[in-house]
Amino acid sequence: MLSLEKEAIYCPYCGQRVKKIADDRGERFYCPVCGSTIYKNPVPVVVIVVFNSKGEILLIKRKVEPEKGEWALPSGFIELSEEPAYAAKRELLEETGIELDDPILINVYHQRSKRYESIVVIVYMGFSDSTPKPGDDAEDAGFFSLKTLPKIPFESHTRAIREAVALRKK
Amino acid sequence: MLSLEKEAIYCPYCGQRVKKIADDRGERFYCPVCGSTIYKNPVPVVVIVVFNSKGEILLIKRKVEPEKGEWALPSGFIELSEEPAYAAKRELLEETGIELDDPILINVYHQRSKRYESIVVIVYMGFSDSTPKPGDDAEDAGFFSLKTLPKIPFESHTRAIREAVALRKK
Repeated sequence: MLSLEKEAIYCPYCGQRVKKIADDRGERFYCPVCGSTIYKNPVPVVVIVVFNSKGEILLIKRKVEPEKGEWALPSGFIELSEEPAYAAKRELLEETGIELDDPILINVYHQRSKRYESIVVIVYMGFSDSTPKPGDDAEDAGFFSLKTLPKIPFESHTRAIREAVALRKK
Repeated sequence: MLSLEKEAIYCPYCGQRVKKIADDRGERFYCPVCGSTIYKNPVPVVVIVVFNSKGEILLIKRKVEPEKGEWALPSGFIELSEEPAYAAKRELLEETGIELDDPILINVYHQRSKRYESIVVIVYMGFSDSTPKPGDDAEDAGFFSLKTLPKIPFESHTRAIREAVALRKK
């Protein structure tokens, strides 16, 4: 399915002006010419919390917006027809060079997004003592102890870390 | 984010014709006039497997397409800004009248879809001995033993049942 980041003005199927509808079923756009409806859906992303055997957490320094230059968890969009667990492994490998066999699903939650309005965050956890090598959307990567963890600008990431740390202690 | 069910022909922001691009980063549409890119993303849905104390599974008879008239698990789209676990509870309540406190997340996986191309299925499990009352998109609802389970037309639902049954036995 195609996703639009901004509000539609024209119908993508016939090029005529669309109308915005908002009721108890939510907000959507309707084309009075060809009869198409364009719905809004949250966008699914994956996030992964990787611990080393010292209990430190793997972070990457973001090379891209939003929050370019800030530290955060490895994360990214799920591609079309991609298994979410595979997406988590792929993003981890692309951003840190670390390979992981079986990431553990720990939770799924909603996050508001300036750019995408609403995101569904699928959170995985894993373990590795490999040395990270930054790549792709990451300009740096490294393990941090909980005491020296940089401030992370995404609430969903800090929640993911909190939940993963609690699970690891069990 | 807005989602389109069919391929875009016109730019939803400026009304001009878009071009299709396909490379190793996937398929997307680009507007040469205003410079907008329209990406494709999977659409997140929730599915819930509810057992009664006899170990029977709650199914609904679908009142809407796809697979209208067939039995399946309670399921539906996650609304914008909705917690996935809440979406599972809401769909269950709307389709069967059954209220559940804390659905348990059991897995997340990809499913191909004729209509939406690619779906991310978020699977929950729960327990209830309430009597279902069909509503909303369900024309009937009831508990079925594993031996008398009707054929379910969605592979993601049969996988969800298989995984929930295995977890319940643990």
